[in-house]
Amino acid sequence: MNRISFEELQATLESVLRKLGFSDSRAQACARLFAETTCDGVYTHGVNRFPRFVAMVRNGSIDVEAEPQLLAGFGALERWDGRKGPGNLNAQACMERAIALSRTHGVGCVSLGNTNHWMRGGTYGWQAAEAGVIGICWTNTMPNLPPWGGAEPCIGNNPLVIAVPREGGHVVLDMALSQFSYGALESYRTRGEMLPVDGGFDAEGNLTRDPAAIEQSQRPLPIGYWKGSGLSIILDMIAAMTSLGKATHQLSADPLLEAGISQVFLAINPAALGDGPILSQTADDIIASLHNCQPAEKGTRIRYPGEKTLRIRAENRKLGLPIEPAVWEQILKM
Amino acid sequence: MNRISFEELQATLESVLRKLGFSDSRAQACARLFAETTCDGVYTHGVNRFPRFVAMVRNGSIDVEAEPQLLAGFGALERWDGRKGPGNLNAQACMERAIALSRTHGVGCVSLGNTNHWMRGGTYGWQAAEAGVIGICWTNTMPNLPPWGGAEPCIGNNPLVIAVPREGGHVVLDMALSQFSYGALESYRTRGEMLPVDGGFDAEGNLTRDPAAIEQSQRPLPIGYWKGSGLSIILDMIAAMTSLGKATHQLSADPLLEAGISQVFLAINPAALGDGPILSQTADDIIASLHNCQPAEKGTRIRYPGEKTLRIRAENRKLGLPIEPAVWEQILKM
Repeated sequence: MNRISFEELQATLESVLRKLGFSDSRAQACARLFAETTCDGVYTHGVNRFPRFVAMVRNGSIDVEAEPQLLAGFGALERWDGRKGPGNLNAQACMERAIALSRTHGVGCVSLGNTNHWMRGGTYGWQAAEAGVIGICWTNTMPNLPPWGGAEPCIGNNPLVIAVPREGGHVVLDMALSQFSYGALESYRTRGEMLPVDGGFDAEGNLTRDPAAIEQSQRPLPIGYWKGSGLSIILDMIAAMTSLGKATHQLSADPLLEAGISQVFLAINPAALGDGPILSQTADDIIASLHNCQPAEKGTRIRYPGEKTLRIRAENRKLGLPIEPAVWEQILKM
Repeated sequence: MNRISFEELQATLESVLRKLGFSDSRAQACARLFAETTCDGVYTHGVNRFPRFVAMVRNGSIDVEAEPQLLAGFGALERWDGRKGPGNLNAQACMERAIALSRTHGVGCVSLGNTNHWMRGGTYGWQAAEAGVIGICWTNTMPNLPPWGGAEPCIGNNPLVIAVPREGGHVVLDMALSQFSYGALESYRTRGEMLPVDGGFDAEGNLTRDPAAIEQSQRPLPIGYWKGSGLSIILDMIAAMTSLGKATHQLSADPLLEAGISQVFLAINPAALGDGPILSQTADDIIASLHNCQPAEKGTRIRYPGEKTLRIRAENRKLGLPIEPAVWEQILKM
C-alpha cells in the first residue's frame, strides 16, 4: 500500500479533473471530496471510485459544467434539478441549501433529481453536523438488490445517512440498505473469508455466508430482510416523488450508466429553539450510556456511529492516505 | 376468536376510558385509535394492549387529562411537552401539528418529549398520508435491545414509520428496529415454531432461530445487526435532543413504567410545489415495477409496505374484529 499525503492526492485528482474540463474551483472542490472520503477510510467511495467517476465523465453520464438549478420552492421545501452534474458537487450544494433553509425555517428539505452518484453519502452528514445541524439524507440507486420475496434485483440499496452534531465528535450513520455491498462481498471472497452473518441466498435459495455464492445468485439481503426491503422501496418513492426525478426501476443497471438518480436532503436546526449546551450534553450522555453497556466480548466497547472515523482521519492525515499501488498508477496516467 | 363489530369495540373501550376520568371527547378519540389499530390487524398494539394502557393510567404513568403544550417554535420546527398524557392522543396531536406546519412551510417538524407509548406507530403514518402529505416519525423506547456487540439491552427498538400518500392506497412502513419483537418471539414459541431467520443470540452467544432461547438470553437482534443498532442510537439521540426529553438510557425497563418517552414527527408536503397527479403516478409506477419483479416463489407477488392493511381492514369491518375471548372478558369487567 502506498501512503500519499492528503495534499498530493488532492492535487493529483484536481489536475485530472481540470483535464476533463472542470473549472479550477470545481476541480478543487471535487478533488477535495474524494480526498476527504479516502482520508476518512471509506476507500471504496474515495480514490478507488475515482476511475469509474472519470469513465462516467468520458461516456457523457456526468456533465462537468452543470450546476444544480432551483425548479420550485415553497417555504422550507425546495426541488432542484441536478442537470446530470457531478454527483458529489450537486449533493454538497443541496445539503448546503437545506442547511441554509434550516437557519431561516428551523427545518430545510431539498429534493434533487437528475443527479449522479454522490460517492460517500456520509460526506453530507458530516457537512450538516459541521454546520451544527442534524442532517438526514438518502439517495436512490440503480436496481441492485432483490426486494424481500423477489428473485431479481428490482430495488436499490439506497444509502441512508443521519448525522447529529456534537462538540466531542459528530455522530454520523452512513449505511446502505443491503447487508453487504458487492464491494464487501468481493473483498471477503478475495480474502478467502466467509461473511460474519448471512448475507444473501445461494443458487438453491438457501441463506448463506458464502460471498461467492451471493455474487453468483445476485441475491444479497436487504438489512432486516423484509424490513430493509420496505425501507428501500419507500425511500425511493419519496426521492422520486419530491424531486420528480427517476425512481430505481427507471435507472440503468449498468454501473457506468447509473445516471439521473434522485436524492433528498433534510436539515433540522434544533439550536434555533435555543439550547445549545443541553443538546450536546444529551448526545454525550447517550454515548456514555453506550460505553457503559456490558459488551458481549470482554475488553471491547460499544461504538457509536462514526466513532472510528475521527481516529482513522487523524491517522491518515499523519501517516498519509493508504492507496493501492495499482489504483495510484492508473490515476497518475490519466 | 370472538368477532366484535368496530362500533361495539369502540363503545366498550370508550366507556372504560370514561370511568378512568377521560372526558367524553377524549375517551371517544382514544377508543377509536385502539379500535382502528385492531381493525387494521395490528392486534398487539390494539385491543391486546388496552389492559396495559389501563394499568398505566391506574399507576399514574399516564395523566388522562394532560394535553401537549408548545414549549418553543421557530418557523417549521416546534418542540412540545407531552405532559405524560395518553401517548396515542399526544402523538396524533403532534402529527396533526406537523401536517399543519407543512401546509404553511412545505415541511413541518414537531418534537415531543415527556409523552407515553404511542401504541401503533403506523397510525400517525396513515394520518399523514390521509392528509395528503409524506409522514416520517419515530419514537424511542425503554432499553429492550442490546446494541451490536453488547450483552445487555441498552438501546431501544425505536419504531420508525414512513408514509407516502397515494390515491390507490397509501404506502405505510411501520417497523421496529428489532428483527422480532418480544411479542413475536412469544407467539412463535407458543405455536412451537422456529423463526424464519436468525432472531437473536442463545445463552452461548450463537445466532439462533429458537424464540425461547432468545427470550431467555434477552439478546434479540437489531435489523441488519450493526446497521439497525446504529440507526436506533441516532434516532434516540435526535428524539431526545430536539424534544429535550428523555433518552432510552433514562427510561425505566419496566414496561408498566415506560413513561416520559421522546418522539419526532416530520411532514413533507410535496403538493405545495404543485404536481399532484405526477406524484401519484410516480408512486403507482414504482408499485407496478415491484408487482412485475420476478418472485422467488412461483405464484407469489412482491408487496409494498402497507399493502396487506387495506384488505385486512375491509375484512374486519365486514366480519367484525377478531378479539381473543380472554382479552374481551377482561375488558368487559373493567
